[in-house]
Amino acid sequence: MSELTVISASDIAEYVTRDLAFAAVEKALIAITKPDSRLFPVTIGRGVPDESMVAIKSGMSAPEGVVGMKVGTYWPNNRDMGLTNHGSTTLLLDPDTGMPTVLFNAVALNGLRTAAANAVASNVLARPDAEVLLLVGAGHQARCEIAALCDIRPISRVLIWSRNLNHAAELAEELSASASNQSFAQFSATSDLEMAAGEADIITTVTPSTQVLIQSAWVRPGTHISAMGADKKGKQELDPRLVEGGKLFADHPPQSVEIGEFQSATQQELIREQDITAIGRVLTGVCKGRTGERDITIFDSSGIVLQDIAVAQAVLEKIRKKGGGLKVSF
Amino acid sequence: MSELTVISASDIAEYVTRDLAFAAVEKALIAITKPDSRLFPVTIGRGVPDESMVAIKSGMSAPEGVVGMKVGTYWPNNRDMGLTNHGSTTLLLDPDTGMPTVLFNAVALNGLRTAAANAVASNVLARPDAEVLLLVGAGHQARCEIAALCDIRPISRVLIWSRNLNHAAELAEELSASASNQSFAQFSATSDLEMAAGEADIITTVTPSTQVLIQSAWVRPGTHISAMGADKKGKQELDPRLVEGGKLFADHPPQSVEIGEFQSATQQELIREQDITAIGRVLTGVCKGRTGERDITIFDSSGIVLQDIAVAQAVLEKIRKKGGGLKVSF
Repeated sequence: MSELTVISASDIAEYVTRDLAFAAVEKALIAITKPDSRLFPVTIGRGVPDESMVAIKSGMSAPEGVVGMKVGTYWPNNRDMGLTNHGSTTLLLDPDTGMPTVLFNAVALNGLRTAAANAVASNVLARPDAEVLLLVGAGHQARCEIAALCDIRPISRVLIWSRNLNHAAELAEELSASASNQSFAQFSATSDLEMAAGEADIITTVTPSTQVLIQSAWVRPGTHISAMGADKKGKQELDPRLVEGGKLFADHPPQSVEIGEFQSATQQELIREQDITAIGRVLTGVCKGRTGERDITIFDSSGIVLQDIAVAQAVLEKIRKKGGGLKVSF
Repeated sequence: MSELTVISASDIAEYVTRDLAFAAVEKALIAITKPDSRLFPVTIGRGVPDESMVAIKSGMSAPEGVVGMKVGTYWPNNRDMGLTNHGSTTLLLDPDTGMPTVLFNAVALNGLRTAAANAVASNVLARPDAEVLLLVGAGHQARCEIAALCDIRPISRVLIWSRNLNHAAELAEELSASASNQSFAQFSATSDLEMAAGEADIITTVTPSTQVLIQSAWVRPGTHISAMGADKKGKQELDPRLVEGGKLFADHPPQSVEIGEFQSATQQELIREQDITAIGRVLTGVCKGRTGERDITIFDSSGIVLQDIAVAQAVLEKIRKKGGGLKVSF
């Protein structure tokens, strides 16, 4: 008989913060560069509803040797029932025995961990004086990204573009109304992506696009771009020529050229996997990040389960200190 | 906030029986033949210890539309710590929302569900008067297989062969000592596999072999063989010529020719996938099983997650009727 800790959605809501996610994701982005870390093959399946999806991502994080997995689900009609369409459950295994130790309702962690990856990368790649942010995309994830970037740079203006201008306008309005929570930035929607890209110091793309949104000619020297959208074959947000001209970083270069933003430029032989630096190597000082004010730096986030494992572990540590979480016989 | 039911090892021990496993696995073997059932790709990874393994098997069972997954682990040194080397955790998702509903400590279910597949298949394929059983292999699974087969046929003699004769002798002695639990069969170890194969009415192979153990010439007309061992590329227990001459059945023919016993004979072009009948189609009466006393019937069990899902569901149903299991906020 073993023991399992169950961490519910309300436990998570109580204990997770952007700071916690930032520190945990930084650790994960370093962990993936360690020799013994590994990602296991991803399983994709589906349930009964058309368009439903089950994605099982798993791997091992060195040096602790923690094996973990995230079961992500997408059920298209949940919202009609007052539920999120996206489910997320994370399970950790004991490195010494392989036995399950902790089960997390991780729904509230996904957005934070993804935004934290952008913040961690932007923190070492964006110019110190970067203050104009362009968000390409205006969904739930855009909210998380803006908050995380406002934590690491003195953002004064946030431009928001969306394929549907109404969504961008709604988000700008919502954020203006609660601006006290988001530093003192000004928020505005824009329909002119070219002009906005030319004004931005940091561009973050968070769309499901499969076609180029940001043209190479639009982007000023010195800009930092985080391409957060592409995470499967066929997805793309940036002009491959822009990629070719940039200094390239990724959470995990082999995955980035396979399913991330850098797949297109690689297929077109404009870049090779060796041209991409794992951001973890910049974080540990092994490799350089931005080397000059005029560099265009591009970070591709394809998403790795080590982020989910690290954030889950950090929440667990905090919960354990306070005596929270539910331990059950298993 | 949702609700999760946690089913512990002791819950399972209290509620699972061979009858329950038999009925559930029969249901699963029929379910896999339904158009909407599917197996998702299997993920194999490993932890820190050499030889450790994590295997994630998942799929959807029609008609209920239940999505489920089993996380199987093998940690080679657990026994030194007084734990099983094999861990097994099963998670079920709500067909309507994709949200996790039940988590099972399924360690005690694996052996039973695998043996139940043999019993279900043997029940429709072995001659009604079959009474001599040969077990090829003498590990934990052999114990489960013998008990399950004694439930469905009046077994009078059980011959046990193992690569290590001591293991076979120990098992025979153990079963003789507790024979009251296993009908009135006589148990004996044998080092002469050829002679034993020639005497048997039912042969069950449960070894990790990668080479032929049972030669074609050794097997009498009328014998039923369940090949339970092969479940990945390179595994094999039966002479491909024996397979060529048999009436062939499997839990899931596409998987059987990929990773099961029938992979060798298929590779050698002695048989084709179309020559194999899904045992579920025999169970529903759509296809014939044994058609004559002299048929050599061969059932290959490559193992499908729908078995794990069905046994878990059956345990859950029983537990719910009695008000057991632990419901937690999730």
